[in-house]
Amino acid sequence: MTAVTHEDVLAAAARIGGHVLRTPVLEVSPGLWFKLEQLQHSGSFKVRGAFNRILAAGDVPAAGVIAASGGNHGLAVAFAARAVGVRAEIFVPEVTSPVKVAGLRALGAHITQTGSIYSEAAEAAAKRAAETGALQVHAYDQPEVVAGQGTTGLELMEQTGGVDTVLVAVGGGGFAAGVTVGTSAGGSGPRIVAVEPERIPTLHAAREAGKPVPVQVGGVAADALGASVIGGLAFEILSGPRVESVLVSDEAIVAARRTLWERHRVAAEHAGAAAYAALLSDVYRPEPGERVAVVICGSNTDPATLTSD
Amino acid sequence: MTAVTHEDVLAAAARIGGHVLRTPVLEVSPGLWFKLEQLQHSGSFKVRGAFNRILAAGDVPAAGVIAASGGNHGLAVAFAARAVGVRAEIFVPEVTSPVKVAGLRALGAHITQTGSIYSEAAEAAAKRAAETGALQVHAYDQPEVVAGQGTTGLELMEQTGGVDTVLVAVGGGGFAAGVTVGTSAGGSGPRIVAVEPERIPTLHAAREAGKPVPVQVGGVAADALGASVIGGLAFEILSGPRVESVLVSDEAIVAARRTLWERHRVAAEHAGAAAYAALLSDVYRPEPGERVAVVICGSNTDPATLTSD
Ligand SMILES: Cc1ncc(COP(=O)(O)O)c(C=O)c1O
Ligand SMILES: Cc1ncc(COP(=O)(O)O)c(C=O)c1O
Repeated sequence: MTAVTHEDVLAAAARIGGHVLRTPVLEVSPGLWFKLEQLQHSGSFKVRGAFNRILAAGDVPAAGVIAASGGNHGLAVAFAARAVGVRAEIFVPEVTSPVKVAGLRALGAHITQTGSIYSEAAEAAAKRAAETGALQVHAYDQPEVVAGQGTTGLELMEQTGGVDTVLVAVGGGGFAAGVTVGTSAGGSGPRIVAVEPERIPTLHAAREAGKPVPVQVGGVAADALGASVIGGLAFEILSGPRVESVLVSDEAIVAARRTLWERHRVAAEHAGAAAYAALLSDVYRPEPGERVAVVICGSNTDPATLTSD
Repeated sequence: MTAVTHEDVLAAAARIGGHVLRTPVLEVSPGLWFKLEQLQHSGSFKVRGAFNRILAAGDVPAAGVIAASGGNHGLAVAFAARAVGVRAEIFVPEVTSPVKVAGLRALGAHITQTGSIYSEAAEAAAKRAAETGALQVHAYDQPEVVAGQGTTGLELMEQTGGVDTVLVAVGGGGFAAGVTVGTSAGGSGPRIVAVEPERIPTLHAAREAGKPVPVQVGGVAADALGASVIGGLAFEILSGPRVESVLVSDEAIVAARRTLWERHRVAAEHAGAAAYAALLSDVYRPEPGERVAVVICGSNTDPATLTSD
């Protein structure tokens, strides 16, 4: 029994149902589904965890919610806070692009740019939360966040009528862990293929070391999959017998992203194409007749780059 | 009783079901659905009519199929012909961009570039068909084509559980006519809002004149909605009491297309955003509680332009 249960995911679904989109699935060929989670509010699944964390807290303190992220998590927390009517403070490193800061501001968030790298911004956010009492929303390593992300898995099992295998991208691992729990019922569930870029192997490294360990972060998907260490909750859940861990090259991610646009008219960011890359590059090969779902998980990208890199 | 019946649409659905995607619907807010037909094979609904015309013909002549179009219809006919294993000849005007010609060639079509405008290419195609016996696939004015496009409407009624109103774009009118027939059953069905650009008012002009008449063609959506006259079949069907005809400005189309990307992460071409433009610009205002579906019908566009024009 893990720290996040299927019942937690069911409770999350009930809690956030009125706030997030039930994103559709598309059967692109017989037995192969895309879960189109890149169509989700704020452009990624991250709002599921953010809403669940905020709504599960009940009364949000006057200081509001606080998160550190210059990326999809920050956008998601800002989106959820605005929807619920609470204050959001987002800490981002000084290097964060003006476009991203403007995007966060447009959602009404209060931005603090501090620190030269992410971990410094995160430390500053934690310090600030301790001072103000704001509710911290972690990007991946909180039970409510994992349970919220897991509603994606719950939906896809309902929408497809059940699959044998789900391919899902891993950064800090909160999403893949949630999907693992959300797709299981009564102890059984599909195989989970947890897909990481070769250049950010947080789960691989942790499996080898027997515990979460920091890795070097790089490559095309680093802006979204660039956690330097797998979350503790995620590591526990993704160590289960149903989970297979695979690596994909940056070239495979780029090719998958381009194919998603050119063949399927799906606009995805690199992280959003990572799971599909495992299938397209034959890193994961389904058996004949195997029912497979690929989660397309993010679209916060400049569309001008869909046909180039 | 029109020349295309609901039963024809049901027959089309059975015929083409193995070849086209059942594109998903997305409920973007309570009671408002997008039918995501821009995810269809070849990037538009046009494959539905193309497959139905080709498959309904039974034996395709050795000369194969023939169509005139430098746009979505050409792509769709080429796609369908390749899938079915028959030869496709596509006639395009000399001005057609090399990118589009390359796209058609990549689908295995034989291309003839002739004439300075579309109607000259169309005439040449008709002449060629008369010589070779190839099966002509019209862009909008054939019963099998209208019935094929209508399967979009059939699906959306099933997927939403029924709506009060459907907004759909009009060029030659085959799509809107098909959707009108496909969404009705037993004589009743939702209101159809047939949306045309102000600069290509083929249905408006025909309604005023009491018969199809040519109009000037221009504006941002002309590459896909640029038929200069409404089809005879479409005019008959779209003259029915359930159909409301509205016009949208180019500015409204551009704004709707940008909103589709920025807010909903849906990549659409201008024609694909025209129906949504009627809603966003308040040209069509639903009543409180009205259940509305908007058909997003095409995505053959340079994604670099999604955030600009
Ligand atoms: C689009 C996208 N995909 C996948 C991930 C990875 O999620 P997790 O960190 O929970 O593994 C992220 C994280 O930001 C993301 O933004
Ligand atoms: C994307 C798109 N939408 C709408 C239309 C209009 O269809 P119809 O000519 O059947 O009215 C077309 C026609 O090419 C199209 O390509």
